[in-house]
Amino acid sequence: MKKINLGLIGFGHVGSGVVKILRDKKSFLTKKLGVQIRVKKICDKDIASKRNVSVGKGILTRNPQEILKDPQIDIVVELIGGIHPAKEYILEALKKGKHVVTANKALLSEAGRELFAFAQDMGKSIYFEASVGAGIPIIKSLREGLVANKFNAIFGIVNGTSNFILSQMSKQQITFSCALREAKARGFAERNPILDIAGIDSAHKLILLTYLCFGRFVDLRDVFVEGITEISLADVNYAKELGLEIKLLAIAKKEDNELEVRVHPTLIPNNHLLASVGGVDNALYVSSDLAGNLLFYGPGAGQMPAASAVVADLVDLTQDIRAGLFRPTLNIVEDKSIKRLRKIDEIESRYYIRFMAKDLPGVLAKISGVLARFGISIASVTQKERRFARVVPIVMIIHEAKEKNLRLALEVIDRLEVIKQKSVAIRMEEVY
Amino acid sequence: MKKINLGLIGFGHVGSGVVKILRDKKSFLTKKLGVQIRVKKICDKDIASKRNVSVGKGILTRNPQEILKDPQIDIVVELIGGIHPAKEYILEALKKGKHVVTANKALLSEAGRELFAFAQDMGKSIYFEASVGAGIPIIKSLREGLVANKFNAIFGIVNGTSNFILSQMSKQQITFSCALREAKARGFAERNPILDIAGIDSAHKLILLTYLCFGRFVDLRDVFVEGITEISLADVNYAKELGLEIKLLAIAKKEDNELEVRVHPTLIPNNHLLASVGGVDNALYVSSDLAGNLLFYGPGAGQMPAASAVVADLVDLTQDIRAGLFRPTLNIVEDKSIKRLRKIDEIESRYYIRFMAKDLPGVLAKISGVLARFGISIASVTQKERRFARVVPIVMIIHEAKEKNLRLALEVIDRLEVIKQKSVAIRMEEVY
Repeated sequence: MKKINLGLIGFGHVGSGVVKILRDKKSFLTKKLGVQIRVKKICDKDIASKRNVSVGKGILTRNPQEILKDPQIDIVVELIGGIHPAKEYILEALKKGKHVVTANKALLSEAGRELFAFAQDMGKSIYFEASVGAGIPIIKSLREGLVANKFNAIFGIVNGTSNFILSQMSKQQITFSCALREAKARGFAERNPILDIAGIDSAHKLILLTYLCFGRFVDLRDVFVEGITEISLADVNYAKELGLEIKLLAIAKKEDNELEVRVHPTLIPNNHLLASVGGVDNALYVSSDLAGNLLFYGPGAGQMPAASAVVADLVDLTQDIRAGLFRPTLNIVEDKSIKRLRKIDEIESRYYIRFMAKDLPGVLAKISGVLARFGISIASVTQKERRFARVVPIVMIIHEAKEKNLRLALEVIDRLEVIKQKSVAIRMEEVY
Repeated sequence: MKKINLGLIGFGHVGSGVVKILRDKKSFLTKKLGVQIRVKKICDKDIASKRNVSVGKGILTRNPQEILKDPQIDIVVELIGGIHPAKEYILEALKKGKHVVTANKALLSEAGRELFAFAQDMGKSIYFEASVGAGIPIIKSLREGLVANKFNAIFGIVNGTSNFILSQMSKQQITFSCALREAKARGFAERNPILDIAGIDSAHKLILLTYLCFGRFVDLRDVFVEGITEISLADVNYAKELGLEIKLLAIAKKEDNELEVRVHPTLIPNNHLLASVGGVDNALYVSSDLAGNLLFYGPGAGQMPAASAVVADLVDLTQDIRAGLFRPTLNIVEDKSIKRLRKIDEIESRYYIRFMAKDLPGVLAKISGVLARFGISIASVTQKERRFARVVPIVMIIHEAKEKNLRLALEVIDRLEVIKQKSVAIRMEEVY
């Protein structure tokens, strides 16, 4: 029976999961494929620690060149993460005529265009299903299952850590820092969780989703990114009273031939499917021209879900190799109707706003006067119970307004003598 | 540029959608594929009526043999539905060395084993993404995206008509027959909707899903099927008070090396994702060993969603043909841990039960006495307001009980002099 040899670089959490699946399900996969996938070599800095799968000493190495230079290796699986040296390994592997499977969203979001183009030149593929939504087959669905579709928008809950924190705040009535502590204690947040809670990880994934949906590689600096660190329990609860839930959404959305690409805490109606996505789970809500609105939901992280996606990529590649089929990663067609990226200043949205104002007559008149001056109209307003001596929260929903106008209005309002704290504004989204 | 020729049998709603997509997106698809998909011939009994896409007269025919016997045609798309003559056409196409794309769940659920095996013998493929969940790429996800997984269960809302009716009953507070009338008026139910509301269409799809998840073709007569025709608004509302929603679920579930395959109205917690699937939408909730619990959601019917799936199949087949890759439809590996099918009598479930009893002292004692005799224990009981003179609904939730015991108990109870109407029992499901 034909064997496909793979070299694994990165024998960590997901890497050992991949090896475990290939071992545990060897006969199952071989039967499906008619080909045997064999782990020929595993490279890691640490080849001493125990993993949840044991491998022969002979196949472990600290030297990646033993994989990259091995002409028998057909596929390199890169699971070390980060930009360097992952990028160099992938380039080297492609140059040596190997296909690549990776889960490295940070790298692909930064250098995907370059890497995919180089792979194309080499006639090799880069598969990356595990880089977004772990075991959810979202990349395959966008590339293949929905191949005939053009996309209007994608809305993703793509960071498990942030979603866990927001869910816990809402359900357990705890503060942000308390929920973050719990996430760390339960292994759902890294010791330094900044990439997650600041929205950077979501932005990395959004860049890949934007490429898949619209055929455009956006630079991270062109993605508006706001994390969840400023979300207070008070806002979670006021929103809830309005039938809204706060989620960290990664949004790529086409409007009037412009593309909005942004990550920020977003208020959505609590009866929307995305509002029911709790804990560390992920979900992608896709709006397409033919297949309509679709949701893909599942665990967005974890050893086995991610390894499941890596193995699915391996299976696809194995079939491709056997048939001599080359499916270029760059076969995504650019949506030419998109003329430019829309800056965050220019987006139009409804907003939830919370002012902290002195409890005096005429305050609301002052606030609404400023809003009116900037052409912003109020949909609803509620004055909450007094929280501190003589300071009351005023919660407002405003009709569609241009972000820039709102920013300017809030700057003016926040300088009013009656306003005691920086006002909070959270974007709302209809999500179709 | 290489051309792949297809012949379409069935130029109805979905068929004309397929032609429209292939025409409207010709350059888009050609760019992606490097191959042109060309509609060489279209066969329909009616070649006179206008469709939403116009085609040259020369390619229309009433004679399917013009497609089946044309050696230049690589792929036959069968969209006439029903068993005969669809089956004969497909067999003939395969015999003539053509691949097949179909959306025919009725046929595949009855003769899939035979057709897939014949295709395998011929070295050809049958693709059928549009047969379940229309545009939702569930078949591709199960076969490819989750290729490394074994499945524990799949729970599907796979019939849009039934889901629309149940949703309307719940939301608009209307009766079953009123909701059915509305479904017909809005084009969501056929003039004779029996296949939909009696659960047969769901059972057809469930047979295909069961094959994809467990590698077993189950006969329709081994699937327990109960439709929604007996669901009353009263039960919808009593369930709602208990935090439950009634959905017509198609369930295939492995328990202790036995497989349960059943379609019936099912009570699920209203905070479960499946409970939020409203209107004519479909959803598949999949429990897998590696990727965890996943949900796939979207429009389960409609011209363009279904055509989107057919075109995705065509694209896959085109790639296969170009590369000479043969992906047999029978590469699904049978789950050998399954020893037998579990009969409905043997399943264990919690149940919602509504008795209509005389409003007399001692009634509850009589009912619970009978239940106890059959080893059935009560989780909660509520006596509702009197609905008819001296007859009160008693709503009960019972702990896990064997279906057979419950049936026997209800038979005894329904013969009690105090019981004025056949008791209603609805299965509950945890859905993980």
